[in-house]
Amino acid sequence: MTKQKVLFATIPPRREVPDEVPEFAEFSELFEVVVYPLIDVEQFRKALQTDLSDIAAVYITKAFFKHKFNDFIDYLPPTVKVVALPHVGSDRYDVEKIKSRGIKMCNIGDAPSSDVADVALSLALSTFRFTTFWDHAFRESGGDIIKMKSLMGSTDVDSKTGMPLEAPEDRRFWSKHATLGGKFMDSPKGKVAALVGFGSIGKEIAIRLWAIGMKIVYTKRSELTNAELAQLPFAPVYYPTLDEMLPNTDLLVLAVPHTPQTVNLINERTIQLCKKGIRIVNIGRGTAIDEDVLFKALDDGTVNSVGLDVFQHEPHIDKRYLTRHDVTIAPHVGPFTRDNYHYVAVRTMDNIKNILLNGGDGICPI
Amino acid sequence: MTKQKVLFATIPPRREVPDEVPEFAEFSELFEVVVYPLIDVEQFRKALQTDLSDIAAVYITKAFFKHKFNDFIDYLPPTVKVVALPHVGSDRYDVEKIKSRGIKMCNIGDAPSSDVADVALSLALSTFRFTTFWDHAFRESGGDIIKMKSLMGSTDVDSKTGMPLEAPEDRRFWSKHATLGGKFMDSPKGKVAALVGFGSIGKEIAIRLWAIGMKIVYTKRSELTNAELAQLPFAPVYYPTLDEMLPNTDLLVLAVPHTPQTVNLINERTIQLCKKGIRIVNIGRGTAIDEDVLFKALDDGTVNSVGLDVFQHEPHIDKRYLTRHDVTIAPHVGPFTRDNYHYVAVRTMDNIKNILLNGGDGICPI
Repeated sequence: MTKQKVLFATIPPRREVPDEVPEFAEFSELFEVVVYPLIDVEQFRKALQTDLSDIAAVYITKAFFKHKFNDFIDYLPPTVKVVALPHVGSDRYDVEKIKSRGIKMCNIGDAPSSDVADVALSLALSTFRFTTFWDHAFRESGGDIIKMKSLMGSTDVDSKTGMPLEAPEDRRFWSKHATLGGKFMDSPKGKVAALVGFGSIGKEIAIRLWAIGMKIVYTKRSELTNAELAQLPFAPVYYPTLDEMLPNTDLLVLAVPHTPQTVNLINERTIQLCKKGIRIVNIGRGTAIDEDVLFKALDDGTVNSVGLDVFQHEPHIDKRYLTRHDVTIAPHVGPFTRDNYHYVAVRTMDNIKNILLNGGDGICPI
Repeated sequence: MTKQKVLFATIPPRREVPDEVPEFAEFSELFEVVVYPLIDVEQFRKALQTDLSDIAAVYITKAFFKHKFNDFIDYLPPTVKVVALPHVGSDRYDVEKIKSRGIKMCNIGDAPSSDVADVALSLALSTFRFTTFWDHAFRESGGDIIKMKSLMGSTDVDSKTGMPLEAPEDRRFWSKHATLGGKFMDSPKGKVAALVGFGSIGKEIAIRLWAIGMKIVYTKRSELTNAELAQLPFAPVYYPTLDEMLPNTDLLVLAVPHTPQTVNLINERTIQLCKKGIRIVNIGRGTAIDEDVLFKALDDGTVNSVGLDVFQHEPHIDKRYLTRHDVTIAPHVGPFTRDNYHYVAVRTMDNIKNILLNGGDGICPI
């Protein structure tokens, strides 16, 4: 029997097949792996009707971030049974249109939850303890701990660099004046962490924040079921609305996808509901925060500090982030680990195998 | 009845009394708080025999870090009943000599464990995910996520700055090549975290690492008792020796005090026992690592990455740390939070109250 074909569109010289993953050897025995260098859009469209007219699966690759996959849907041959995403979010794809052509879609399900949650935890710790700032400033000082201690108790920042100035002599007293450029160095223990979004990533984040001693509250459309609650080692408190939750929140963690409902969750109105000195972490989508509102709130102390892995205008971020000691930023690296790559590749291949060989709907159908 | 006197030696203009803590109001009602500006050592010695000849307690302050407390022991009046440390470590003090004079000593017990553990966790996450490096590089790039992604897969570093060079074009493939200047970006989940030192801080760290999905092992002189094990939400595996533990360790966490036994735990011999690509975090004492051995191991890949809050030659650290992307450094900030300051002050005052008013041995006797 002829092997069914799986398309990998590539941007040369990258060969975007998961050949570093041991499971790929079996996969390329089961299927004919077709590596197509996607250089010219017109040529690719033609190829889909000629050389590639019998492909059974599309394994989404980076080529479809450069060239939009949606532009090719009309040209996919009728032999295509599955479009497999090696990631979670499907907002780039016209899912309805793809499905209306009888093509199944799958993503990787919960795979990167723990990796994204680790980044969220790291950002959260930095909002409390300024760990990222300390590494920075410590290096700049030439490795001088005494100079670093002289920043403790500082109330102002350099207007140009945004970096904390030395503390006035009478405030340099252990950690009595636990400020850094006017922002507070606090312990997360005993404080309230509020999750917006309590899916698989939200839950992983909550477990981590609970382990550092925080009380967990959350808001989502519907309260967790008893079965879901039973899987957690703690009992989170439910708020039906963000508005009711914000005044009781010390650390707000946004773990929501991009939807019309999640755009500008933090805006001019909601920022006023926040407890003074709130900390904010965002690892979902950058559109959840109105950044002009955020910068104003950081300046006036409404927000003590923030940790962000996502931004409003990716792939370029607002320059105001670059010169602040009260923000910790990461270049959208939530799921990037060697382990996750392995997991993702295996899950994507399993999705394709399930559909093409077993007639299933995929392990993680969309 | 006359109030008993509690001495606060200060370095002007600092007034080193915990007057930001509400509980201090009651304390200064119960005792006569004597604030003495310690400018001249000879004068202070004289004062201890004249104006201060009836003090009942010494509340240790920063003045005794500038001027060594041990130099004053012989001059303490016989009325002194307690020397109260607002911190944990007592290695700066001649404890035996102080006690031989019938003076009780107290420290703050477990107070800062969770704060130190948070810093350890933050450093550990950075050894796996390079969170601190990303913030750094992201700022330097002007906030360009595409440029940051171009570093993924990189195998080399700039020989001058120590920073990762761009990845070769054929390695820029999502996180397939999850390297950064040749070091690996991995997930901590499922890996083995090994604690050296499993006291209150070690346990707090272990709980945090367990919450991010790590398997916990430890070594200490004696195995945890069943009662101690029952307090943990997981069952750590015991190794009688460091030598046996190292080959099975993905993340080594040093949480030991400075003693003759803990000097150079990581040395030329033990580094060779380590599993290739081990990560190391040190939040105990800097003397536990031979830094020459460490730098060599970082260079040859024996050690993937390290996170350090303590160093061999504090308060100045080895310049080699300053230009490496595979180290995360903190200027010995483990316990520095506003919450901890409050806790520490209350605990220190409680120790003094317990001894002077109730005839006890203090809440946390040394």
